[in-house]
Amino acid sequence: MTTYQSVLKQYIHFAGEHTFKGKPAELYDPANYILSLGGKRVRPLLALLGYQLVDPDIQRAMKLAHAVEVFHNFTLMHDDIMDNANVRRGEPTVHVKWDSSIAILSGDLMLVKAYQLLNELDTDAESKSSIIRAFGDMAESVCVGQQYDMNFEKLTDVSEADYLHMIEGKTSVLLAFSLQAGSILAGIDPALEQDVYDYGLNIGLAFQVMDDYLDTFGDQASFGKRIGGDILENKKTLLWIEAKKRCSSSQLKELQHWYSQTTESNEKIEAVTVLFKSLSVDTYAKEKMQHYFEKANMHLAHIKKHYDTTALEALANDLNARNT
Amino acid sequence: MTTYQSVLKQYIHFAGEHTFKGKPAELYDPANYILSLGGKRVRPLLALLGYQLVDPDIQRAMKLAHAVEVFHNFTLMHDDIMDNANVRRGEPTVHVKWDSSIAILSGDLMLVKAYQLLNELDTDAESKSSIIRAFGDMAESVCVGQQYDMNFEKLTDVSEADYLHMIEGKTSVLLAFSLQAGSILAGIDPALEQDVYDYGLNIGLAFQVMDDYLDTFGDQASFGKRIGGDILENKKTLLWIEAKKRCSSSQLKELQHWYSQTTESNEKIEAVTVLFKSLSVDTYAKEKMQHYFEKANMHLAHIKKHYDTTALEALANDLNARNT
Repeated sequence: MTTYQSVLKQYIHFAGEHTFKGKPAELYDPANYILSLGGKRVRPLLALLGYQLVDPDIQRAMKLAHAVEVFHNFTLMHDDIMDNANVRRGEPTVHVKWDSSIAILSGDLMLVKAYQLLNELDTDAESKSSIIRAFGDMAESVCVGQQYDMNFEKLTDVSEADYLHMIEGKTSVLLAFSLQAGSILAGIDPALEQDVYDYGLNIGLAFQVMDDYLDTFGDQASFGKRIGGDILENKKTLLWIEAKKRCSSSQLKELQHWYSQTTESNEKIEAVTVLFKSLSVDTYAKEKMQHYFEKANMHLAHIKKHYDTTALEALANDLNARNT
Repeated sequence: MTTYQSVLKQYIHFAGEHTFKGKPAELYDPANYILSLGGKRVRPLLALLGYQLVDPDIQRAMKLAHAVEVFHNFTLMHDDIMDNANVRRGEPTVHVKWDSSIAILSGDLMLVKAYQLLNELDTDAESKSSIIRAFGDMAESVCVGQQYDMNFEKLTDVSEADYLHMIEGKTSVLLAFSLQAGSILAGIDPALEQDVYDYGLNIGLAFQVMDDYLDTFGDQASFGKRIGGDILENKKTLLWIEAKKRCSSSQLKELQHWYSQTTESNEKIEAVTVLFKSLSVDTYAKEKMQHYFEKANMHLAHIKKHYDTTALEALANDLNARNT
């Protein structure tokens, strides 16, 4: 059993050796650029840790790991155009550094590349086909999640169920797929495939709810992004959805007042944070997060009976440690 | 042997029964919309005629046919954003009817859908994997072709070799793939797979050169688009590339003068057409076209020795008949 840090190191080495080659540069460079920006590489790590549950020879899962990372970065490249985002991991986004047409086309290439990697997996054709099928279903859910996210911006109200459905598509299904596909490639007991998927799905939901919480109530230094960003962008997060449910009519007016503003304002961040706190939606979010972690751990317990989950748990704990 | 017209009818019926279902509407409707706009459906026809070379039961190839049509329309949806095109087949483009974000995401979904269709093909897993590999290589070439096309807009000079490489990627490889994948799915003699591919590739090149020719020298009524469109857009077509090679320094100045204009002008169309004609680049394009048709027919002759190519030839002839 290799630690997740060592697994990460091996993946980063692999990714460095497998940059995309080809011409014209305008097509391939942006793909290599966004992949080089780093990040936590949670998805390839999950693919490799899923594989390692069953088989220590994680090299066999490297192409799968790279496929999910390439796919994730394809979605980032296109989302950044749709969201008009100028900065990604402290660097200019592709459509800013090059232009939107290049970001569209280079993203398209990355989606093709992800499929190419999957189709090159070192396994029998049947398993490959079933991994490609699951990948396609996952990719469709990610598109659905992104479209709902864009739709929500124009709605005056969003239910918690709709919100959870959206984040499941946008974030969790890819984490779940990564972990499960790794374990299937390694030949996990089919009876446990669903537990592996559900573990990934629920930690995904927990981390997304955590992100919502930390965006308002986190610590600037450890969060990495500006605290209050969601509030400034009038984002319909879990905090906002629950606050709307709990608030009095005068509080609702205040919330609506602030969420009709689009200018940068520390006063707005402070006022909405105080309002959220007075309605205890911070506690609500923490409970919700706890709920998903507990669900995840229930599935983990099943897996643990048969496989060594030490490295996987260490990763989840370290990601969870942001919440302190 | 069914006529290509009857094959087309069966495909249109299949496509009508297999519209995409799902929510949100903003994601699925644009995909169904662009597919409903019609067109000649050359790619699915080629997939089905490739299949029919070997096996009359073309229903088995419908998902392949639909996959290539969905893929083609994905490229149109994204290209229309990049090209700022407002009209597609007489109707508003997706990014005009909805918006650019929706056109990006709905296009992404269509690429995923194309792969899903391929992965559902009624064949053994090995063949499926090899069709998916060929599809990925083709899709990458299409991205390469589109990027070169965009790059050419900014260059002052483009060689004929670069131009041919570009149109091969943008148009021909998909035609070649469609025909070949159909024939492979039906179990064609492997010794002929390359001939089938090369036939598709060369008719693709011939038709693209024909498009360049007809855009300037065609008959308005039968061409369907405005004659002189390429000239108005200062497009670096085969006519322009050859004219630049042949012209005197005073003619070059004239050509450069007109190609620095960006306003709508019938005078420009007339002047450039006269110049092209005086340099006999119309004849050059026709010879080039003939050259590709002859190459295509050489490969067809090999195929004909073993399979009935009547329907395929009828399609090629009818497409060729535009050139009269």
